[in-house]
Amino acid sequence: MSASPFPIGLLGHGTVGSAFDELLDERAEEIERFNGRRPVISGVLTRSRGRFEEVLAGADLLVELIGGLEPAREYLLRAMRAGKDVVTANKQLLSQHGEELFETARAHEVRLRFEAAVAGAVPVVRVLEESLSATPIERIHGIVNGTTNFILTRMAHGSTYDEALAEAQRVGYAEADPSDDVSGRDAAAKMAILARLAFGSPVHLDDVPYEGIEHLHADDLEYARELGLGLRLIGTAERRQGGLSVRVHPTFLYGGHPLATISGPFNAVTVESEAITELTLSGPGAGGRQTASAVLGDVVSVMTGGARPPAPPLPLELIEDVENAFYLHLDVADRPGVLACVAKVLGEHDVSIKSFVQRGMGESARLVMVTHQVLESRMRTAVAEVAQFDFVRSPPRAIRVIEEEFL
Amino acid sequence: MSASPFPIGLLGHGTVGSAFDELLDERAEEIERFNGRRPVISGVLTRSRGRFEEVLAGADLLVELIGGLEPAREYLLRAMRAGKDVVTANKQLLSQHGEELFETARAHEVRLRFEAAVAGAVPVVRVLEESLSATPIERIHGIVNGTTNFILTRMAHGSTYDEALAEAQRVGYAEADPSDDVSGRDAAAKMAILARLAFGSPVHLDDVPYEGIEHLHADDLEYARELGLGLRLIGTAERRQGGLSVRVHPTFLYGGHPLATISGPFNAVTVESEAITELTLSGPGAGGRQTASAVLGDVVSVMTGGARPPAPPLPLELIEDVENAFYLHLDVADRPGVLACVAKVLGEHDVSIKSFVQRGMGESARLVMVTHQVLESRMRTAVAEVAQFDFVRSPPRAIRVIEEEFL
Repeated sequence: MSASPFPIGLLGHGTVGSAFDELLDERAEEIERFNGRRPVISGVLTRSRGRFEEVLAGADLLVELIGGLEPAREYLLRAMRAGKDVVTANKQLLSQHGEELFETARAHEVRLRFEAAVAGAVPVVRVLEESLSATPIERIHGIVNGTTNFILTRMAHGSTYDEALAEAQRVGYAEADPSDDVSGRDAAAKMAILARLAFGSPVHLDDVPYEGIEHLHADDLEYARELGLGLRLIGTAERRQGGLSVRVHPTFLYGGHPLATISGPFNAVTVESEAITELTLSGPGAGGRQTASAVLGDVVSVMTGGARPPAPPLPLELIEDVENAFYLHLDVADRPGVLACVAKVLGEHDVSIKSFVQRGMGESARLVMVTHQVLESRMRTAVAEVAQFDFVRSPPRAIRVIEEEFL
Repeated sequence: MSASPFPIGLLGHGTVGSAFDELLDERAEEIERFNGRRPVISGVLTRSRGRFEEVLAGADLLVELIGGLEPAREYLLRAMRAGKDVVTANKQLLSQHGEELFETARAHEVRLRFEAAVAGAVPVVRVLEESLSATPIERIHGIVNGTTNFILTRMAHGSTYDEALAEAQRVGYAEADPSDDVSGRDAAAKMAILARLAFGSPVHLDDVPYEGIEHLHADDLEYARELGLGLRLIGTAERRQGGLSVRVHPTFLYGGHPLATISGPFNAVTVESEAITELTLSGPGAGGRQTASAVLGDVVSVMTGGARPPAPPLPLELIEDVENAFYLHLDVADRPGVLACVAKVLGEHDVSIKSFVQRGMGESARLVMVTHQVLESRMRTAVAEVAQFDFVRSPPRAIRVIEEEFL
């Protein structure tokens, strides 16, 4: 058979773009065997090479690997309006202009695929869009940033935050300016995209409160170990009080939690639903070749003819103030009555203690406790009040805890 | 919009069939919102109700949940020849007549989907067929039988095999006649299907050597713990010596292996490939509602228009004799020279020892060792020879070990 080739226009030729180019070359023959047509790069657009109009005109499908908002947004919209299918790995764009893109894809009946935007090679987008599209989902927990997971894994083995970050930069898991990763903002963008897929409600990056890992101490990790907990940067999207809560923050997990064993630069997502109980997907979260592999999976899926743009949105109210269990670390002067003062303030704000460790350190002591579920606003007020006591020697540290124990 | 409904013919109305019927009813409205058409059951065939011809004529899609070879095979073939798409959960049929079914689907250009046949709600079929269809896969390891994983989990907590099996039967994870599960045959059928998807090579159930868990002792689990290993029933499909090896047997895993933490009736599959390093999917392996959820995912995927039958086969040679590391447990008389005799025989057959534990038990002693990689045939010969020594007091127990250490 000598079917016509399947022409792909490639926007961007950086790390992921060139890895995609290479992978496509390696796999074109096998893809042709499956799909009858051989995918070929019909045009490439970079800052210094190519014209968008020509790349568009020559392609059946555009792959956008430029990143950032503009001109990526404009290119994708123009391609879809011209009736072309598109594949993108652009999480910034999807988390800030997702509805516009989805709406355009629906209006022009083209495919818009973005597996690589969320968790590298972990096929969570496809599983949510397709396998679970008929499943009412209750909750998603995700480790969706490999840089921070690598840093926290090193800190759990005794590195300081600064040492772990430097190591991540040395081995290429963190950029020179790591702020998008370590602030939690990158994870927040990915959780906005996942929340839209899982719950059908539009979620903008600006709707997702996030907290990073820069303020964590090696101490927190050590005390956590005593309490049988592991520490990860967790994104959560879940139904709460008839609405939807989406957020990202450092979180302690009980040892039995499926995300507690995810180490190094890996990503993982847990999907909970009454119908399926719990599904976990894990794998490498980054790397040019892994991301390129996810992009190529999307290309093949467009060639195969599957998938649709997300359904029209069904907005849910975004709930800001939700209940969580907390770990609270206080560095206090070691004198009588301290614990009673702290316990009184916590009690006044409905914060009740589940487990507790105290350790003397000469003149000072450390109080480390895990609370029962409490509204975040109440916890925040209680902690601010505790911080006022003159016996509290450094700012209290409160970190959320996922309490569920599995099996 | 008042689009026409999407009529589904349901073959079989047992545990999974009725769970599917119920789940479809709950989710029809949401599916219509996504796909424009509302799925409805247009006809049901059971042993006592319905005629196949009528169910077929009234449906756009047939869902086969009868199980077993005939008449399921005949019904699926007739449906596809009539141009209807089909969804099945039938692992026996796919592992014994897969090529005939795939070939028929290709010839008549219909969809044949079977997510529920392999690992319950874990979407490994879709991920292999779609996300990874352009990825050259090196190896798959799977825990694809929830009954045996439940039993081994209980044994790791101190139950005997008989106690654990009785408990599995009591809570509904094992059938009254558990032989298909505990013999490894059920897992072998699933690995045959996965191997076909991952490597393109036809694999019949009869091509898959399997070994069950009936002969395991609580002792094996205890000694393994001393060596830092966990015990699972593992199915493996991997490229070896230019061919393909597919097999199922009890296997020891190092604590860091992603399958080592999978407990209770869960299933999990690890896919290894140079391009993606390693991907793991895990979730509930059985249960009517979980299986029904996977079937419904397939139905939605047919409605959405994605996916194709597997490509024409590319047969690989099936390799029977592969290298593995082994754990070897010997119950011997406690007298001088025993270890030297054993070590000599092992050495003559190229079996070299990696780690070793000896423990005196009064008159007898136990030798427990883990070997380096060795051809299975050599290990078998060596063990048979060791078993001849008069100081060996019970049949030696050799169990495979997965050595790779992750991260």
